[in-house]
Amino acid sequence: MSRVAPPRGFASDEFEARLEKAQARMRREGLTSLLLTREAEVRYFSGFTTPFWQSPTRPWFLLVPLRGKPIAVIPEIGVAAMRRGWVDDIRSWPAPRPEDDGLSLLVETLRETGAERGRVGVPMGPETQLRMPLADYYRLEAALPTTEFVDATGLIRALRLLKSDAEIARIAHVCALAGEAFAAVPRLAATGQPLAEVFRAFRIDLLRRRVDDVPYLVGGAGPGGYADVISPPGDRALGAGDVLMMDTGAVYDGYFCDFDRNYAVERADAAAHRAYATLYRATDAGFAAARPGARCADVFHAMRTVIEDAGYDVGDVGRMGHGLGMQLTEWPSLTATDRTVLAPGMVLTLEPGLSLGACCGMVHEENLVIREDGAEWLTCRAPDELPVLA
Amino acid sequence: MSRVAPPRGFASDEFEARLEKAQARMRREGLTSLLLTREAEVRYFSGFTTPFWQSPTRPWFLLVPLRGKPIAVIPEIGVAAMRRGWVDDIRSWPAPRPEDDGLSLLVETLRETGAERGRVGVPMGPETQLRMPLADYYRLEAALPTTEFVDATGLIRALRLLKSDAEIARIAHVCALAGEAFAAVPRLAATGQPLAEVFRAFRIDLLRRRVDDVPYLVGGAGPGGYADVISPPGDRALGAGDVLMMDTGAVYDGYFCDFDRNYAVERADAAAHRAYATLYRATDAGFAAARPGARCADVFHAMRTVIEDAGYDVGDVGRMGHGLGMQLTEWPSLTATDRTVLAPGMVLTLEPGLSLGACCGMVHEENLVIREDGAEWLTCRAPDELPVLA
Repeated sequence: MSRVAPPRGFASDEFEARLEKAQARMRREGLTSLLLTREAEVRYFSGFTTPFWQSPTRPWFLLVPLRGKPIAVIPEIGVAAMRRGWVDDIRSWPAPRPEDDGLSLLVETLRETGAERGRVGVPMGPETQLRMPLADYYRLEAALPTTEFVDATGLIRALRLLKSDAEIARIAHVCALAGEAFAAVPRLAATGQPLAEVFRAFRIDLLRRRVDDVPYLVGGAGPGGYADVISPPGDRALGAGDVLMMDTGAVYDGYFCDFDRNYAVERADAAAHRAYATLYRATDAGFAAARPGARCADVFHAMRTVIEDAGYDVGDVGRMGHGLGMQLTEWPSLTATDRTVLAPGMVLTLEPGLSLGACCGMVHEENLVIREDGAEWLTCRAPDELPVLA
Repeated sequence: MSRVAPPRGFASDEFEARLEKAQARMRREGLTSLLLTREAEVRYFSGFTTPFWQSPTRPWFLLVPLRGKPIAVIPEIGVAAMRRGWVDDIRSWPAPRPEDDGLSLLVETLRETGAERGRVGVPMGPETQLRMPLADYYRLEAALPTTEFVDATGLIRALRLLKSDAEIARIAHVCALAGEAFAAVPRLAATGQPLAEVFRAFRIDLLRRRVDDVPYLVGGAGPGGYADVISPPGDRALGAGDVLMMDTGAVYDGYFCDFDRNYAVERADAAAHRAYATLYRATDAGFAAARPGARCADVFHAMRTVIEDAGYDVGDVGRMGHGLGMQLTEWPSLTATDRTVLAPGMVLTLEPGLSLGACCGMVHEENLVIREDGAEWLTCRAPDELPVLA
């Protein structure tokens, strides 16, 4: 494997472009600043990269003012790591300090950026979370009684929907590494092996291929299909006739892949082959529909039509694909009702699934990027026939 | 290595005990129900175990009523996984559905549990986050105008502070596995090796030793010490005279260890040896102070006294240890001001650190559990002298 990894970190122009787009839209929406608290958004505007978000103890704040670069208001423990990023103005307090965990410093900084006579955008809508104690957010509102806090989901969503070439290169890279690992599964998995051991070997193989981490690895195995697609693996041994599915979100330099592969163990019956072939054709249909100007709902309908025309139900996953990037799943959703218009630079998963009776089903997943002239695969596609492990 | 792993999952009596304690305290506080949205609390009362929390798209709700078992209000994709846990009453909707992402179902379920004439506890305080869109939380409040939503942090904190024997067994197990991996670092790390490669080899070694995952692995290396203790490793090669530190939060069955180890590369100067020995003695002092009835601040002061008496500053980490369990860091904090009284069943990290001039420092970390007669190590302690990699 002599694959060349994209260099880590982004050049300044990447952050400048993000900031410029954000501030242009802030002007249009009349926002004085953005207040960001979550890992993805803080990293998006600062380059701040750390697994320390695992610790829920301390809040982290990034302010995007209407003019000038973002300002970090963060715990002292993170100052050295934040300095590695793009932000110059870093203000810190000795956290944890429950009686005032950055709040007075945040209020002061918001005042400097004109919040008292202004509107502060906070992501409050679908797929967002406020990563600070709710009681502290109420205190923040009380400390700035003349500030209007408004939902900034639309702004953040619009920016993050469209990936730069540098972002796409990272997703493509981790897709390629995971694709190689999936191709090697026939050497890792065999009848009689506990599912947990197959998953462990696969995770180690991914790391050996130089993904940074594997935050997401789920799947299942069962006779002819599987029921639960979000659980960690159990100790049940793989049996002949099982269909094994593994779905991974591996990471390179802060960007995810998210796709799965199916394998039959020793043999597969006609029903499993037919279900697999149907999902393959549904993926083809989704890919063909995923063109600039089409809507998410169009892509969903293209896939659903293939599945239902073949006589299947689409299962209960709730959607058949989604955005992908700094998070395992991002806006938009491929559902019957999502009217998002596809545009070049969007990265999507196609994730058609179907039910095989009450007990189980099958799911297929690939990743793509929307280009000017249509979709382009980021994953090296799964075989067009259900592969059988010897 | 023939270490026996604790069986996965908890018996019903574990969940019954948690529920009983929660409901007893709910009665005292006049709460009609608890509304929980975050991974740790949902899992604590339900056993729901999935890496799917990586996906920010869908909210998940668990209601703990004043009488009877918890009720799950969750996306359809999670029903099969939730059925593996302890909850019987599982209500679902086809998420994502941004126009009503579980909200009407949640309101209906809250009404059934008496919320309209009651008080609903929501964790809002230090170390908590609301894992649902803020705009949906506002809608929830508006849909239940006669309901009082109050902070339930104290209740949740009090329960989670005290670990059961079954919880402690999991933490002890993952501490033991990580301890074995740390002991093998001299076989993995050598002069000239890029730090990222040392970390990758260590992560793979942890997985081979059968931890489930390694969500947290940070550290640093530099001449005589390191500056940034929360960043992922860079590509700088280990050099003779470096001090290498790795800090890991590995997981077994949903429970974390959190400790580090320091190593000198080829050689260490007297300053590095002296700093290490000081932190070792500070850890001794923290361990001796960590007895039932003592306060977190007492343990902090015991460690700080050793460090300052040796002529060092304690650095800018903000605390010298914390709770540990379902999350990498939990309540309480070992700070100068945390008045939490230690009690049997609390699991803590001792994490003394010191500054070595402006550029760098050193940090040491061990894990322990408070027993009736004092602290008990969960980690196999680090060597009492800075180990030197050949």
